Amino acid sequence: MQPAPSIPIDTRRHLRPPGIAFGGDYNPEQWPEEVWAEDVALMKEAGVSMVTAGIFSWAKVEPRPGEYDFTWFDRVMDNLAGAGVAVCLATMTASPPPWLSRLHPEILPETADGRRMWLGGRQHYCPSSAVYREHAARLVERLATRYADHPALEMWHIGNEYGCHTPMCWCDESAADFRRWLSERYGGIEALNDAWSTAFWSQGYDSFDEVLPPRLAPTFPNPAQQLDFARFSDDALLQCYLAENEVLRRSTPDVPVTTNFIGVHKPVDAFRWAAQEDVVSVDVYQDPHDEDTHVAAGFIFDVARSARAGQPWMLMEQAPSAVNWRDRNGPKPPGRMRLWSWQAVAQGADAVLYFQWRQSRGGAEKYHSAMLPHGGTDTRTFREVSELGRELASVPRIAGTRSTADVALVLDWNSWWALELDSHPSTALNQMDIALAHYRPLFEAGIACDVVPPDRDLSGYRLVVAPNLYLLKERDSERLTEFVRGGGHLLVSFFSGIVDNCDRVHLGGYPAPLSEVLGLRVEEFWPLAENETVDVRHVDGTVSRADLWSETVVPEGAQAVAEFGSGHLAGQPAVTRHSFGDGTAWYVATRLAPEAMRALTDDVCRTASAGPVLPGLPQHVQATVREGDGGRFVFLLNHGREEVEVRLPQPLTDALTRETAPADRITLPGAGVAVLTEP
Amino acid sequence: MQPAPSIPIDTRRHLRPPGIAFGGDYNPEQWPEEVWAEDVALMKEAGVSMVTAGIFSWAKVEPRPGEYDFTWFDRVMDNLAGAGVAVCLATMTASPPPWLSRLHPEILPETADGRRMWLGGRQHYCPSSAVYREHAARLVERLATRYADHPALEMWHIGNEYGCHTPMCWCDESAADFRRWLSERYGGIEALNDAWSTAFWSQGYDSFDEVLPPRLAPTFPNPAQQLDFARFSDDALLQCYLAENEVLRRSTPDVPVTTNFIGVHKPVDAFRWAAQEDVVSVDVYQDPHDEDTHVAAGFIFDVARSARAGQPWMLMEQAPSAVNWRDRNGPKPPGRMRLWSWQAVAQGADAVLYFQWRQSRGGAEKYHSAMLPHGGTDTRTFREVSELGRELASVPRIAGTRSTADVALVLDWNSWWALELDSHPSTALNQMDIALAHYRPLFEAGIACDVVPPDRDLSGYRLVVAPNLYLLKERDSERLTEFVRGGGHLLVSFFSGIVDNCDRVHLGGYPAPLSEVLGLRVEEFWPLAENETVDVRHVDGTVSRADLWSETVVPEGAQAVAEFGSGHLAGQPAVTRHSFGDGTAWYVATRLAPEAMRALTDDVCRTASAGPVLPGLPQHVQATVREGDGGRFVFLLNHGREEVEVRLPQPLTDALTRETAPADRITLPGAGVAVLTEP
Amino acid sequence: MQPAPSIPIDTRRHLRPPGIAFGGDYNPEQWPEEVWAEDVALMKEAGVSMVTAGIFSWAKVEPRPGEYDFTWFDRVMDNLAGAGVAVCLATMTASPPPWLSRLHPEILPETADGRRMWLGGRQHYCPSSAVYREHAARLVERLATRYADHPALEMWHIGNEYGCHTPMCWCDESAADFRRWLSERYGGIEALNDAWSTAFWSQGYDSFDEVLPPRLAPTFPNPAQQLDFARFSDDALLQCYLAENEVLRRSTPDVPVTTNFIGVHKPVDAFRWAAQEDVVSVDVYQDPHDEDTHVAAGFIFDVARSARAGQPWMLMEQAPSAVNWRDRNGPKPPGRMRLWSWQAVAQGADAVLYFQWRQSRGGAEKYHSAMLPHGGTDTRTFREVSELGRELASVPRIAGTRSTADVALVLDWNSWWALELDSHPSTALNQMDIALAHYRPLFEAGIACDVVPPDRDLSGYRLVVAPNLYLLKERDSERLTEFVRGGGHLLVSFFSGIVDNCDRVHLGGYPAPLSEVLGLRVEEFWPLAENETVDVRHVDGTVSRADLWSETVVPEGAQAVAEFGSGHLAGQPAVTRHSFGDGTAWYVATRLAPEAMRALTDDVCRTASAGPVLPGLPQHVQATVREGDGGRFVFLLNHGREEVEVRLPQPLTDALTRETAPADRITLPGAGVAVLTEP
Repeated sequence: MQPAPSIPIDTRRHLRPPGIAFGGDYNPEQWPEEVWAEDVALMKEAGVSMVTAGIFSWAKVEPRPGEYDFTWFDRVMDNLAGAGVAVCLATMTASPPPWLSRLHPEILPETADGRRMWLGGRQHYCPSSAVYREHAARLVERLATRYADHPALEMWHIGNEYGCHTPMCWCDESAADFRRWLSERYGGIEALNDAWSTAFWSQGYDSFDEVLPPRLAPTFPNPAQQLDFARFSDDALLQCYLAENEVLRRSTPDVPVTTNFIGVHKPVDAFRWAAQEDVVSVDVYQDPHDEDTHVAAGFIFDVARSARAGQPWMLMEQAPSAVNWRDRNGPKPPGRMRLWSWQAVAQGADAVLYFQWRQSRGGAEKYHSAMLPHGGTDTRTFREVSELGRELASVPRIAGTRSTADVALVLDWNSWWALELDSHPSTALNQMDIALAHYRPLFEAGIACDVVPPDRDLSGYRLVVAPNLYLLKERDSERLTEFVRGGGHLLVSFFSGIVDNCDRVHLGGYPAPLSEVLGLRVEEFWPLAENETVDVRHVDGTVSRADLWSETVVPEGAQAVAEFGSGHLAGQPAVTRHSFGDGTAWYVATRLAPEAMRALTDDVCRTASAGPVLPGLPQHVQATVREGDGGRFVFLLNHGREEVEVRLPQPLTDALTRETAPADRITLPGAGVAVLTEP
Repeated sequence: MQPAPSIPIDTRRHLRPPGIAFGGDYNPEQWPEEVWAEDVALMKEAGVSMVTAGIFSWAKVEPRPGEYDFTWFDRVMDNLAGAGVAVCLATMTASPPPWLSRLHPEILPETADGRRMWLGGRQHYCPSSAVYREHAARLVERLATRYADHPALEMWHIGNEYGCHTPMCWCDESAADFRRWLSERYGGIEALNDAWSTAFWSQGYDSFDEVLPPRLAPTFPNPAQQLDFARFSDDALLQCYLAENEVLRRSTPDVPVTTNFIGVHKPVDAFRWAAQEDVVSVDVYQDPHDEDTHVAAGFIFDVARSARAGQPWMLMEQAPSAVNWRDRNGPKPPGRMRLWSWQAVAQGADAVLYFQWRQSRGGAEKYHSAMLPHGGTDTRTFREVSELGRELASVPRIAGTRSTADVALVLDWNSWWALELDSHPSTALNQMDIALAHYRPLFEAGIACDVVPPDRDLSGYRLVVAPNLYLLKERDSERLTEFVRGGGHLLVSFFSGIVDNCDRVHLGGYPAPLSEVLGLRVEEFWPLAENETVDVRHVDGTVSRADLWSETVVPEGAQAVAEFGSGHLAGQPAVTRHSFGDGTAWYVATRLAPEAMRALTDDVCRTASAGPVLPGLPQHVQATVREGDGGRFVFLLNHGREEVEVRLPQPLTDALTRETAPADRITLPGAGVAVLTEP
Repeated sequence: MQPAPSIPIDTRRHLRPPGIAFGGDYNPEQWPEEVWAEDVALMKEAGVSMVTAGIFSWAKVEPRPGEYDFTWFDRVMDNLAGAGVAVCLATMTASPPPWLSRLHPEILPETADGRRMWLGGRQHYCPSSAVYREHAARLVERLATRYADHPALEMWHIGNEYGCHTPMCWCDESAADFRRWLSERYGGIEALNDAWSTAFWSQGYDSFDEVLPPRLAPTFPNPAQQLDFARFSDDALLQCYLAENEVLRRSTPDVPVTTNFIGVHKPVDAFRWAAQEDVVSVDVYQDPHDEDTHVAAGFIFDVARSARAGQPWMLMEQAPSAVNWRDRNGPKPPGRMRLWSWQAVAQGADAVLYFQWRQSRGGAEKYHSAMLPHGGTDTRTFREVSELGRELASVPRIAGTRSTADVALVLDWNSWWALELDSHPSTALNQMDIALAHYRPLFEAGIACDVVPPDRDLSGYRLVVAPNLYLLKERDSERLTEFVRGGGHLLVSFFSGIVDNCDRVHLGGYPAPLSEVLGLRVEEFWPLAENETVDVRHVDGTVSRADLWSETVVPEGAQAVAEFGSGHLAGQPAVTRHSFGDGTAWYVATRLAPEAMRALTDDVCRTASAGPVLPGLPQHVQATVREGDGGRFVFLLNHGREEVEVRLPQPLTDALTRETAPADRITLPGAGVAVLTEP
């Protein structure tokens, strides 16, 4: 699959002013038409320059099969154009109307244990459904034709949050599609038998006709079958996207296309999808009850930026304050929404949008905050939104600038899917947990970090971090080996390089394809019991705790920089370092406590000469740089609650305060933000 | 729906002596006929005056479709009549016989995720099933004809514990019935679309034919759909009841009719149902492992008494000792069964019945205690039962007396259903928890309390308490406002008055319909995280803890009587008081700790001049009064384990000890009971 | 059902050397044929003398319906024969090939709530499926014919781990088979109605056609129905076994037959099955994360030995190190695999086999350890395996020797099934927990113990222990009573002797059939709340804690040897002792803490003169004796981590060290093993 050619945002249209796009989902069909005039008036007041409209309009534009009524939506588009608000126009296919599943109940998805999922919520369609795809394409054709030349149209937004609620379907139509997909992938049934290791448990297939999705089974279904089903399911969703994309490419070849990822979402491989978009966009919902929510959000932002190699991306959805779907939904405390919005910009976003413009009166998301709350304009939320709108508009030259990074963290959806399968040494391994455990000390040290798939060109990085890279293709392990041989630095964590692309163990001693570069062999896995911990004794004499996992590491060239200090493996290596070619490779054979992980990361970065954007940052302060035609911008974000002072390497000016005199130090209140430029 | 005319118990029949009815479920079909003579002999020994018979007799009286055999049941009825034991005769329709679901598998209910529920337990019928209703009516017709003039017949007991196990059904027949019900409710599909806010998530219906119950969906089903399905399901059960009731009204117009509620049960709106009964009856199963089980039971008793505006009610089922259906079923310790039975009488019951007379030898309830245990008459249980029978018989004049209350607690099933829907600011809100949090300090202070629906006439009360009255119709909020304006006192807790009858937010700032009377506006909900607490600082300087919920309260006339002392809302109002018209309205914006709730309740009651039945009660002692033609009875119940002394305002005589000399103080042992009368 | 005549292992064949068989599951179809030569070479290196082959070969020998290809398997058999490795030949029916469920989807099992279970794992067949059984028998016929005279064939291994994943099926074919089974059991429908107590809840059946398995129901399904369904399901599996067995008996009447139990597995009544085998075999998977895993394993070993009255048995599967199916799978620490293998031999095993020979490269069990790991021969596991192989081969004369015991612990699958049904006084009762609570102090004291069904001849024992023998047939209670009357000693724990074979309460006061021998009556059950404990005051003045359960015991001849010291039953008996006839009967009315259970067991054993194999054993050391034509062997196993010294009653020689000089004391390191023989 080749990346489609990228169409930059706003090449064709100049309805809205240049700069960071600001706005949100606009769902006027929820309100009587007399409210719409107030909508656009208040949008202007709030600084809205872009809305994404039509997400859930299918039932209203096609109330009966084949009977379309776009007249009301014409008025919506005209209103917005009249107010200078650009539209990221949804294809309206995110949730099919009731008549479709009544006429075609076979579009309803089924769970692995054969339970049908019905209408009443949203996304109640099987991704493989031919009927759904045909009806969706028919609608998109109409939409594209009707609005191709509308002045409000700036972008297309295909579907919405693909795979959020129905990432997989086990119905008979999915089963048939899975067989077709497998047949294309493997050519013949013997290749599938080999890939799936079906000789075990008497699973040898005589024909593709016998193959099914991994439905409810008496015990663990075949892991390679599960892995392929994850790949297939991701692809089935992507085919829905591509079918609509094809219509749009034909009708409006110069309008950029996007779809919004739901954070970093296991069922949807953002790296594969991004290649099929013109612009990456992503929805991020921080949890105000979680103290570290900005670190997890930062990881998502870095994935979004890296997915198209640094191209600016869109924050398509965030909550103005509280959400409605967690068990307990606190609002964002004063200043945090501003801070986290700026964080997105600091990490490469060129659009700050929300779900949604006006808070619903009824329905499942009526308690999801909106830019314009139930309480109206005299509310903290509307005030904070409007102030941010003005603030973003004041620094339009940020748009289009980019960041660079010395460090790359490897994330591979295939490995993620395989790592978290059942019947493993420990089912407690979690890809995101371990990725964040490695990401967090980098984030906190202010070291810029890309997140890349394993087949990305690594030559520009000083350090590559590979957390739990369980599934590793030979050619990817060769790439990592060459990276180190050529002078790169590599940090690999436990249970990496174990299986091939078909979840078959690389024979010859774990982790066979990385043994040479790491200079070691792993003889046995010793996953720890729940709540069990072991000591780790570091070369500097300090002792830390580790949990979750341990391994018998047999050095074959590597040196221990820490060893286990207790437990069955006491005295054996826990962390190793191996000089290889012109570079160095580290291996971590357990889950280190956060402070030990931080110390290790510091060491490794020092060795790799991967330094922070700004030296000597106070705790809780994030710093990033964006640079380009618009200039060079240093972003400082205080994620703490206390005021801090940041020393600058050179006198800079804060573009937000509009102080003109440059300063060599800056004071940031709790949740404070500064955007520094050279004077 | 109009309340049916009430037929008092025992108008027509005088088989049993006057007074509190005593007895239990009698299931002679479980035993060979030679045991039946012993049954009636031991009933006399135990003081049994009434049994409810035939609950599960369908399979035995109609062993094959349309073939009836009542001869054995004739003998049961004759035996009972001969022994002077009145019969509350069940319509035998609680659990259909195996042949019915074999011939008509479509009567079997289905879960929301499409799993059929089968026979083997009980209540395995879809409430909307036409086949079930027809077969039930046919049986009731036979029963009514056969026993209309039987001397043992005192009352009809329709069905049994409606909705206990199968309160809702999602099958195709239920779906069709739901559509019919919606069509009647809304008239046209656009009214439904408006009520359900279907413009969101592309749910607009083009016809009622497209509508389904809220079956398993990829995410939260439409909340108004869920709410209407709760209403419909309650109504479908009620239609089962009414279909049988109609047969009985025709055949035996002068025999009173009841059905037994299962405590205060979310699926069944007791207030609606009670209007269709002649007498309210209720099943109450205290948990001996729960120290506060008598408070929760007291709440149920007050609902039972209030459901028909103070009319005496029947305790239809309680356990003589242990039950069988909790995970761990402890027996009632010595004296507790007596105490809790008297508590029912003290709170208005005119019947004390048990499940069941003779403990089953087999089946699912063989470990449910019975009046006559497996061990026979030489058991603590049989002794305690017999003693209570004699004791109750000694004060026959209690029957028919009534209580009055200055305080009403508002309970609305519609609001309950809506409050506990998903996708809310916090899913941890629980209607019963918050109702009991308000009820408990009233109970412990000895203040009589009715529990009423929001459309009940409030003019006779001094104080109205509305805990989490989330859904509030405009006309009900007007009634509350007028109540305060006219001098009433109102205590409202957080997250009240938020949505209308269709679960749509009342716009204009929360809680719009109560803002005037409460003198405030709520700007934001701040539900607390699990285990999170905040300080509350009261005007008297004390500090207490609160959890679960907090809100940004903007006073508009109200005064803070407590404010948050920590957290994001520190310094903002936590409890307010508002003088309005001739009355006062309080608002509680968080969940206060029990001691703070008690102090607040004391304050509010003092202001409202709502006092206890008896001043200066020792801890753990409950006091109530019943009064009427039979005299005035003061009930004292010691729920503690220690002996206490109660001072009386005037010398009174304990009707149970038969001491003739009145005393101005009385000593109650742990679990002790006194029934005081004026000398 | 009569036990089939037993065919001793190795009567016909002498391929392998005499002695303990050593080896494992051999699945060569997972590997290319060029690996097979290495397999047999390394088997010789590891001391392998027997493999069990073909378990999952069905799909490969019958790749299409009726098309057989045994040629590859011929080569496997020839290779093994050539290397002198005997084969326990599987019938290959454990997991049907994909084509079978595609052609006959009706063979797929269904859950109680109607969800079909699909292929992808293993055991995806309904045990009642006629199609499955026919296809299995057809295959076995072919196999038996082909290999009847093959020199490698030593035994037949029918199926594999019956009931491991699909012990029960609720599909329509199972329902029909259940009806047939019930009809045979009860003759007429009235007998079933009586047995199932269907008069309650209107469950009276008019015909067998109305009966169904206990599928999902609105509430507790009929308990006797559940109990009979457990019996039926066990029998349906056994019929699968017997159908294959019949083919083998015909073709190879002189080849012994076995099937492997999964430890002590609730769905499969090992005592019934063992009667249909020639040799008992069992799979045991210790959990290295559990400190007491060897005690639970010891219990299983004693069941295996007792199942055919002391006949040597086979450890058919154990893990060489880690398994793959728990949540966290630690490896066996150094020495433990050897220790636990010797424990099996010490408790009567004549075969020590593993799952599996060569670790799978792919599939669901690739992380299950194997004799030959992914890492090859230079691994701890291969070394430990090979050393054990040599060690076992060095003492061939152990094979065929037997043990005796003075103590029998009663285990009854019928009672187990009934005990753990729902709707009980406490659902926290667990048959294995309470059995192990009684077994553990015997094990730790070194007292040999058989585990027997209640209809076994008890006359040879001094002490019989009956933990939670809830369901008790009259004739079994008479056997226990006569045992005590004749001088035996009996220890019975709470909630025993409560119901008859149809789960109907024995009337006349609990536990009616044991009241005479125990000299008491139980009036009430007082199950304790979760986390609730009570004191127990022993006659010697010590106080211990108890939990889970308590009862009101009314002595009728018995004397209290401990009483409750707190709670509602303070001062009432907790443990009693009753002299009856020439023996004594104890009763324990609560769950004693482990140390109190140990003290009680010591007392009881002392009274019964049931002593340890070796007096004065250090803590953590297990001692057993096997004796026979091969001599007398004393096994000492140190389950602790520290070195200990064991004094011997007479000078003995350790057969493993090959020290020739006998010694009167022996030093065992942590995990150490000694096999002592008379010099």
